[in-house]
Amino acid sequence: MSWQQNSISQEENYMYLAIEEAKLGGIFTAPNPMVGAVIVKDGKILGKGHHHLCGEAHAEVNALLSCKEEVKGATIYVTLEPCSHYGKTPPCAEALVKSGIKKVVCSMQDPNPKVAGKGFEILRNAGIEVECGLLEEEARWLNRAFLKHITTGFPCIVVKSATTADGKIATSTGNSKWITNEMSREKVHILRNRMGAILTSISTIKMDNPMLNCRLDSSKYRVHQPVRLIADTYAQLPEESQVAQTALEYPTYLFHSSSAEKEHLEKLQQMGIHTQELQTDGTGHISMKELFNFVGKMGINSVLVEAGGNLNATLWEEDWVDEFYLFIAPKIAGGHNAPTCVEGKGVDKMDFAKKLSLRSIKNLQDDILLHFQREKK
Amino acid sequence: MSWQQNSISQEENYMYLAIEEAKLGGIFTAPNPMVGAVIVKDGKILGKGHHHLCGEAHAEVNALLSCKEEVKGATIYVTLEPCSHYGKTPPCAEALVKSGIKKVVCSMQDPNPKVAGKGFEILRNAGIEVECGLLEEEARWLNRAFLKHITTGFPCIVVKSATTADGKIATSTGNSKWITNEMSREKVHILRNRMGAILTSISTIKMDNPMLNCRLDSSKYRVHQPVRLIADTYAQLPEESQVAQTALEYPTYLFHSSSAEKEHLEKLQQMGIHTQELQTDGTGHISMKELFNFVGKMGINSVLVEAGGNLNATLWEEDWVDEFYLFIAPKIAGGHNAPTCVEGKGVDKMDFAKKLSLRSIKNLQDDILLHFQREKK
Repeated sequence: MSWQQNSISQEENYMYLAIEEAKLGGIFTAPNPMVGAVIVKDGKILGKGHHHLCGEAHAEVNALLSCKEEVKGATIYVTLEPCSHYGKTPPCAEALVKSGIKKVVCSMQDPNPKVAGKGFEILRNAGIEVECGLLEEEARWLNRAFLKHITTGFPCIVVKSATTADGKIATSTGNSKWITNEMSREKVHILRNRMGAILTSISTIKMDNPMLNCRLDSSKYRVHQPVRLIADTYAQLPEESQVAQTALEYPTYLFHSSSAEKEHLEKLQQMGIHTQELQTDGTGHISMKELFNFVGKMGINSVLVEAGGNLNATLWEEDWVDEFYLFIAPKIAGGHNAPTCVEGKGVDKMDFAKKLSLRSIKNLQDDILLHFQREKK
Repeated sequence: MSWQQNSISQEENYMYLAIEEAKLGGIFTAPNPMVGAVIVKDGKILGKGHHHLCGEAHAEVNALLSCKEEVKGATIYVTLEPCSHYGKTPPCAEALVKSGIKKVVCSMQDPNPKVAGKGFEILRNAGIEVECGLLEEEARWLNRAFLKHITTGFPCIVVKSATTADGKIATSTGNSKWITNEMSREKVHILRNRMGAILTSISTIKMDNPMLNCRLDSSKYRVHQPVRLIADTYAQLPEESQVAQTALEYPTYLFHSSSAEKEHLEKLQQMGIHTQELQTDGTGHISMKELFNFVGKMGINSVLVEAGGNLNATLWEEDWVDEFYLFIAPKIAGGHNAPTCVEGKGVDKMDFAKKLSLRSIKNLQDDILLHFQREKK
């Protein structure tokens, strides 16, 4: 939204460019952050670059490589503190020192405890001028999944629901094909394409038998397949389900409790499904904390939840949700027994409802897409 | 939306002005239509006027009266065909003939069978040039309530609901104070202010004990009080309810079946409530067709429905709804048993859901207001 402000400084302009550059990395940088860099000298952009893929060169190095002219004396605008450690690539701070760059402007310090100010230290010790905090809010929003993951160990949890205008996710007989229009359904695939994993429940699989893959046109999009996660306490996943049938093609994890039947688990494993036993919570279902802890340890920093009202209710009640995408179709289904997107017990008083803040409204032809962020105190 | 078009003709400009002028009449013209007129000569606006109040002068006459200069040879832009009959005021067509106006441009013919082209005939017979159809769609939308009423005898039915983002109109314990924010609640009063009546059900009164009046600041708004209508098959309205207690101040109609207890009905009548017995429908409740027929005959051409999921379900199922205002608050209440804005049996297949078209989206601080129109085939 700040993009639309009337007067933004030249410095902010360069940093917005760096953020746009960072976005090009998309999900492919995970579990690393998306980073973009722009190199400027005497008011001229000499080069830019972004982190393409986890394990490959960082944004600063790519930006330096893209310069055709002498960078000595230039300023680099970069969306995150340059790294200071030898990870999969050598430290960017050192590459910048070597390049003769005069000034480094960053949006934010790297919260990774291996960096966290050490990058700035290397730069300052080499006599480079360092500024930090330009468009920090925008840079934090860009890397919200990375930031949550690196600071808490848990992935960013994004819930998606599609309802009629009267709040139904299916009719009273369970029919849910199709609530939203094709444009909304494509938007869901765009969402899937930028998430590390998709989580659903066994009841959604039994009801809808979804594929849970990303079906974007690869001639138009750089397509990524999220890992499929299934919360299935008693390991009831049918062998004939689409997810089971395609487990060799799309990585699929089934989370179950110790009550699951061993024989069926073995069959699912033979089909290529990764099974993982987890502790249960007070209700006898597998614990979401255990599940997200496991997923975080897998290096997955974002999970899209596409499930029904019961799993959603658990996530809202336990306050796991970071973001909520609500697709609303312009139709009325009615039905006292038709399911809604959050079931469970619910709050007693309206005052106790979970509060969100609206980030954006989009028209998708005649559907409406509301994007909310959970208001964390 | 057409207001934002890039190139609109000068003629359209004048008609848009006439439509804006018409709107000033608001609900006060009901059951007459809102009408506005603009008089133009040699590219100069000589005067404008609108129909202020049912029974008072019409737009054309007010526009003529507002002119300080000679109108002979001028063109009048008027949002509806000038009337041809002696009603509460003499025919406007004749006033226009006398004025020496040269040309009359109208948005639409008057569907009132007493006029319906006869106004145009008077004008043409007097040698005045007549054009019809400029911005007809906009003029029809402006007077949609009048048009429905005059062509069908029934009022325009506008349903309003306020829900959480997960589609709940109250928590599972019935608490609904407050779902939406103050700005949304003011918007509801603005809606009430332009409707002939508000309809609710006895269950909403028992649950919320609402006043159902218009509480806008009369120093800022021209305030009108809609008639209050209560669907109460067994006449269970409590004497201590706010609506009963204020029935002398705000006209209140209670619709009941023959099963209602005579003694209680008499008590309510003594409190100032108008009671009306209606036939029941197949479900044993009073028939909505009977109710809306009665209300139409009262000369009320628009009804705002502020009720719960059961009355709403009947209206959607029987296809009474013309428009739907949905206020969405950015919060999650959850609850399998929490009520939604349309209960009842509901449709079996999503294909059978009632289809709407979206007319507008508004942000009311952090609430969202969606305005839908029922897509009638």
